[in-house]
Amino acid sequence: MATETQTKMKALHYDGPFKVSVKEIELPKILHPDDAIIKVTTACICGSDLHMYQGRTAAQSGLVFGHENMGIVQELGSGVTLLKKGDRIVLPFNVADGRCRNCEEGKTAFCTGVNPGFAGGAYGYVAMGPYQGGQAQYLRVPYADFNALKLPPGTENEANFAMLADIFPTGWHGLVLSGFKPGESVAVWGAGPVGLMAAYSGIIRGASKVYVVDQVKERLDAAKKIGCIPINFTESNPVDQIIKHNGGMVDRAVDAVGYQAVDKGGKKEVPNVVLDQIIMVTRPTGGLGIPGLYVPADPGAPDEQSGKGQLLISFGKLFEKGLSLGTGQCNVKAYNRYLRDLIISGRANPAFVVSHEVSLDDAVDAYDKFDRRVDGYTKVLLHPNGPLN
Amino acid sequence: MATETQTKMKALHYDGPFKVSVKEIELPKILHPDDAIIKVTTACICGSDLHMYQGRTAAQSGLVFGHENMGIVQELGSGVTLLKKGDRIVLPFNVADGRCRNCEEGKTAFCTGVNPGFAGGAYGYVAMGPYQGGQAQYLRVPYADFNALKLPPGTENEANFAMLADIFPTGWHGLVLSGFKPGESVAVWGAGPVGLMAAYSGIIRGASKVYVVDQVKERLDAAKKIGCIPINFTESNPVDQIIKHNGGMVDRAVDAVGYQAVDKGGKKEVPNVVLDQIIMVTRPTGGLGIPGLYVPADPGAPDEQSGKGQLLISFGKLFEKGLSLGTGQCNVKAYNRYLRDLIISGRANPAFVVSHEVSLDDAVDAYDKFDRRVDGYTKVLLHPNGPLN
Amino acid sequence: MATETQTKMKALHYDGPFKVSVKEIELPKILHPDDAIIKVTTACICGSDLHMYQGRTAAQSGLVFGHENMGIVQELGSGVTLLKKGDRIVLPFNVADGRCRNCEEGKTAFCTGVNPGFAGGAYGYVAMGPYQGGQAQYLRVPYADFNALKLPPGTENEANFAMLADIFPTGWHGLVLSGFKPGESVAVWGAGPVGLMAAYSGIIRGASKVYVVDQVKERLDAAKKIGCIPINFTESNPVDQIIKHNGGMVDRAVDAVGYQAVDKGGKKEVPNVVLDQIIMVTRPTGGLGIPGLYVPADPGAPDEQSGKGQLLISFGKLFEKGLSLGTGQCNVKAYNRYLRDLIISGRANPAFVVSHEVSLDDAVDAYDKFDRRVDGYTKVLLHPNGPLN
Amino acid sequence: MATETQTKMKALHYDGPFKVSVKEIELPKILHPDDAIIKVTTACICGSDLHMYQGRTAAQSGLVFGHENMGIVQELGSGVTLLKKGDRIVLPFNVADGRCRNCEEGKTAFCTGVNPGFAGGAYGYVAMGPYQGGQAQYLRVPYADFNALKLPPGTENEANFAMLADIFPTGWHGLVLSGFKPGESVAVWGAGPVGLMAAYSGIIRGASKVYVVDQVKERLDAAKKIGCIPINFTESNPVDQIIKHNGGMVDRAVDAVGYQAVDKGGKKEVPNVVLDQIIMVTRPTGGLGIPGLYVPADPGAPDEQSGKGQLLISFGKLFEKGLSLGTGQCNVKAYNRYLRDLIISGRANPAFVVSHEVSLDDAVDAYDKFDRRVDGYTKVLLHPNGPLN
Repeated sequence: MATETQTKMKALHYDGPFKVSVKEIELPKILHPDDAIIKVTTACICGSDLHMYQGRTAAQSGLVFGHENMGIVQELGSGVTLLKKGDRIVLPFNVADGRCRNCEEGKTAFCTGVNPGFAGGAYGYVAMGPYQGGQAQYLRVPYADFNALKLPPGTENEANFAMLADIFPTGWHGLVLSGFKPGESVAVWGAGPVGLMAAYSGIIRGASKVYVVDQVKERLDAAKKIGCIPINFTESNPVDQIIKHNGGMVDRAVDAVGYQAVDKGGKKEVPNVVLDQIIMVTRPTGGLGIPGLYVPADPGAPDEQSGKGQLLISFGKLFEKGLSLGTGQCNVKAYNRYLRDLIISGRANPAFVVSHEVSLDDAVDAYDKFDRRVDGYTKVLLHPNGPLN
Repeated sequence: MATETQTKMKALHYDGPFKVSVKEIELPKILHPDDAIIKVTTACICGSDLHMYQGRTAAQSGLVFGHENMGIVQELGSGVTLLKKGDRIVLPFNVADGRCRNCEEGKTAFCTGVNPGFAGGAYGYVAMGPYQGGQAQYLRVPYADFNALKLPPGTENEANFAMLADIFPTGWHGLVLSGFKPGESVAVWGAGPVGLMAAYSGIIRGASKVYVVDQVKERLDAAKKIGCIPINFTESNPVDQIIKHNGGMVDRAVDAVGYQAVDKGGKKEVPNVVLDQIIMVTRPTGGLGIPGLYVPADPGAPDEQSGKGQLLISFGKLFEKGLSLGTGQCNVKAYNRYLRDLIISGRANPAFVVSHEVSLDDAVDAYDKFDRRVDGYTKVLLHPNGPLN
Repeated sequence: MATETQTKMKALHYDGPFKVSVKEIELPKILHPDDAIIKVTTACICGSDLHMYQGRTAAQSGLVFGHENMGIVQELGSGVTLLKKGDRIVLPFNVADGRCRNCEEGKTAFCTGVNPGFAGGAYGYVAMGPYQGGQAQYLRVPYADFNALKLPPGTENEANFAMLADIFPTGWHGLVLSGFKPGESVAVWGAGPVGLMAAYSGIIRGASKVYVVDQVKERLDAAKKIGCIPINFTESNPVDQIIKHNGGMVDRAVDAVGYQAVDKGGKKEVPNVVLDQIIMVTRPTGGLGIPGLYVPADPGAPDEQSGKGQLLISFGKLFEKGLSLGTGQCNVKAYNRYLRDLIISGRANPAFVVSHEVSLDDAVDAYDKFDRRVDGYTKVLLHPNGPLN
Repeated sequence: MATETQTKMKALHYDGPFKVSVKEIELPKILHPDDAIIKVTTACICGSDLHMYQGRTAAQSGLVFGHENMGIVQELGSGVTLLKKGDRIVLPFNVADGRCRNCEEGKTAFCTGVNPGFAGGAYGYVAMGPYQGGQAQYLRVPYADFNALKLPPGTENEANFAMLADIFPTGWHGLVLSGFKPGESVAVWGAGPVGLMAAYSGIIRGASKVYVVDQVKERLDAAKKIGCIPINFTESNPVDQIIKHNGGMVDRAVDAVGYQAVDKGGKKEVPNVVLDQIIMVTRPTGGLGIPGLYVPADPGAPDEQSGKGQLLISFGKLFEKGLSLGTGQCNVKAYNRYLRDLIISGRANPAFVVSHEVSLDDAVDAYDKFDRRVDGYTKVLLHPNGPLN
């Protein structure tokens, strides 16, 4: 606990492309009556942190990363009414004000009150507003009553609950965007953490069949283990594989890959390849859910049009089939309460995707290994205040 | 009425590009116990008939056009249980069997039982199954109980009811696909018959504002007359015009133009221009409804990729805004009963789009003029058995 | 405007059964950082205020009535981020915190954070939390960013906007609760302000037919004027009248009467009579919307069971028809933004129900006359700071 | 298979109260072009068959019972287009025509074309139309393409698929009627076959907790075995038990008991007791699903008002909580395709409720024992053409 005289804390500091370090910085302070400060018990490293780490964004040196955060309430602004000191909470990656039109309609990923000129804010992420991340000992939480989700006290289910900040709701959101109904068949492209969570959501919600498409053996094994049918797209056209196994097209498809999709060789970026395949694999009247990130500007794109976020889509086929599609960042608050309850009752255990848990001091090494995909680094949890009891 | 000895009837006969003629052909016969034969009182010419007329499709000589049909029940198969001789009915342009999965789920535009190897059938249209059209004195109606919508006896509202076969439900469908809710603002691209019906649907259903984008003065005037705000896209960027007038982006946008969209000059085809503009004009979390036709193969396309139905879409922007979109042919049965009741109670009068009513003998001339867009031909009704009383 | 030295204001003061007076009381103060103080431009008297006025509730002397309020922002707590001094706003009758589970799911009428031990709060109403009402010169607005709906500056549409605090959304809610879809037929019981607003909502949203059931000629005339079909239940069974006129049962029915329903004579209270009639008038698979108030305890009930809120319902018939029903106070925020936009664009003018506009000094007289239903008092607007320019 | 010369078949014949016998009757014949005849492989005895068996209905001697039927297509009318001889199919208990308004909107339990003057038909049930039941060797299936659900050939999953005719969809429907969303908590009253199926549906669809209320140990054990929390209502007030265990009220409640509910002693009929308890156990803004049967006329009711289907409901409390509720017979076709696919993929095994499988000759004994609830008779499958291979 921050003692009275403590004014500094350790935090993961972005220094420039492929360089992060743990430094002492000022403790966060209450800036608004509805703020809270939490002592971070767990913060995850997300695949999207690597975009900044790799220097492919406009992130400035000094940014503290970390948008998947949970911890213990330490200090409360005078306007906070629901939280109490000592409460254990997990935070959506979205920062939202709870009072704009989008928030009141449940679209917290598109809050217009936290990031001037843009719809949506997040902790520790470039262009997502003036919020430091949680890969640090302490974190300021704006509009804390609105953003916090209360957890049972203690340390039980810490890793499971950490999944509530982003990837479990985001995978679940992918399924929702597709228009999924129980009993339907679904195909998920991508078996990274978000793709596995989308597939796992299908299992939990009563999909009759869940196909998972990837090229990495360990990921496909993980998909199989939770009851899905693994499809390796480097072996042959995944659309054909699925249609053959399923005896026809599937009802819904989810793109959990996004703009960094690769071709059948598994290496060359082809930004529209997954979009095209999910159009082909889905039956007429079906639906597509696209939680995988697409961006309006990508300096590292393979061609000029992709660089402007313009992709060639088989729109004629999409129309002929009468497909619908949904896109966008996840409104975490729309789901996290329910996913929490599934964890508490033992019906969901999303932490099966976690590969490593390390201290903040080991974060620099973890970034390096995660970026190089060595030693099985797929989902890393940091405990900035040391291991939990 | 077809007398006992009558075996022939007059029908509009496709002879080849830009050539149609009225010929005598065999009367249609009951081929299945659930069939009915109707005496056609009204059949409309649809803009999509012109695609075949212009020879841009694979339509064969001998096809009888006409997918917007209504008339009087003349003969019934032994399996028909709900219709009676003399009933006045209007038919969805879709032919549907009422017993496949898609039909039972209300997706009658994607019936899998009427057009082998394809999801969806229609009267008098190339590649939409073996069904002659209704621009003829008589018409065979498959699965007649399922497909027919009963109308009040008599001749009242004939033109209004004729709009129920296609364009009124199709415009309404566009609004539904966009996710529209009453009180929202909506922008409709295209003020042809379908676009006007989409806009009119917005008015009926409680839109706060309806913008209509076109370049033809008469069409924009028609939009204004029903309470919409007309936007001429040849004057300046329609997206900017709408955002300025509306004080921000709209909640929903409808593309009632399709793949033959043209650039700001108003002439050169640019297949993706409307799609791009509806993405730009819609606010984050909003929705796009796309009833305008896009095709997987277009021999007349301006470039190779469009020819394969592949269009360059601002997918990065679409994702950033978290937009959803819906596409596809209209499931007419999902709406026509309700639109009929609005007509009967006097709350909807969609026939304001009708420009001409002619006899079958004048159909050849009507096709020519409608194709050349002269003399104000925008929506033509044929009365194949002569004028109604 | 409250000057620096002003510490008192005029307010409508409840003194006991059938006694109200205008007294000077302390000005409201900011009690929480998210509070605001508004100068009230308009506050309506609601039919439900009469329950307290008549002494049929546990309301204590000293309560300031008024839950339908609008005005100009005068003072802001330090946590308010979206409102600015001088903003013209209208407030939902519900007081809601915007941060509990129910609020985040849009169920602001069931906020658990503003009225300990109960789900739901309101201004100036017994048992709805510690909030004074707005029939006063100034009003404290808790969680002001969340609760306020911004209006265009000026005084235009003042009476229309005042309807957004309660009755227009509440009527609209009734329609929503019934499961209404455009093109359907609907029957509304009750042509008081809420019933007329429910009927008007049906007109705006594309009902094919709207029946309105009441016994008061002026109310039925008002219903007819907005396009509805009036049904006088004292003439003969209203269910039979509607079924006969409609050629069958209606799709949806709305109970805007509540527990003080009366029998066909028009005087004797029969709490379940409207519930029974809406079950009978609605076709199998249809839906019932019940915004009319039912209470778990009613000291003035005609029998013991009604006194405990237990009513005899034709549940067997309800089940046989497979009806659904929805109940409860209106979540005003779910609709008021959209209804405001309909007013601004001129597509809705709900103020047609307003019968009188008076100053605060005339409020005592207005209560008396409204209670006795004399001189056409049906909906009264107070202007506590004098007439608007 | 019925040979050419066969003209008779064995069928379960209702002779009068507590008397059934197996007799030879005429083979069913094709009466309409859309009919089919099936050879029945399995027909279940349903709890609702006992109402007729006990003589508490107007059922006439000679009625063949059986509305939960499956078998092999034997003969086809000339209008059938999708089925083929030899197809293995299961039939919804509802007989529906697939062409009326209710059918086209998916409300097949309320078909207006199969039972004149009433919305809804069924096989082998009093007042549900002129359809013999399937507790016989052969069965006529009206509108066979529409009503049949195709199954994989063979005999695998026979008992699981038999559950698709009624109880699995009906339990699922109960959950749907309640407005259930994944992650929510739900309480199901009744652990008979339908109640267990409702509870099982909650498990499959991702409920966080499922409570099941009953008094029979074996039933509660079965509920526990599938992952539910058993509540014995004879031990203490089940509402209190659930609220205590759950730490508050549940989100949804399902009444799978109906009008023959009993008091806490477990014997005396109190028709409204379950309705009252589900109102009390459900949190504000929650929902109630009521698939349990309530009837508009019950000669055996404990009091006059119940006899007319009028029940005393805590409507004041229902309103105060803003609850919604849905009722009615299950539209089996809305769900059976999806539940079939869950069975095929091994994700659902509803046959765990089956207690006995017997031949038609043993049906008389089975009725007797099932009626007396001896020897563990809870769900009996008949195989009228002998055991499956």
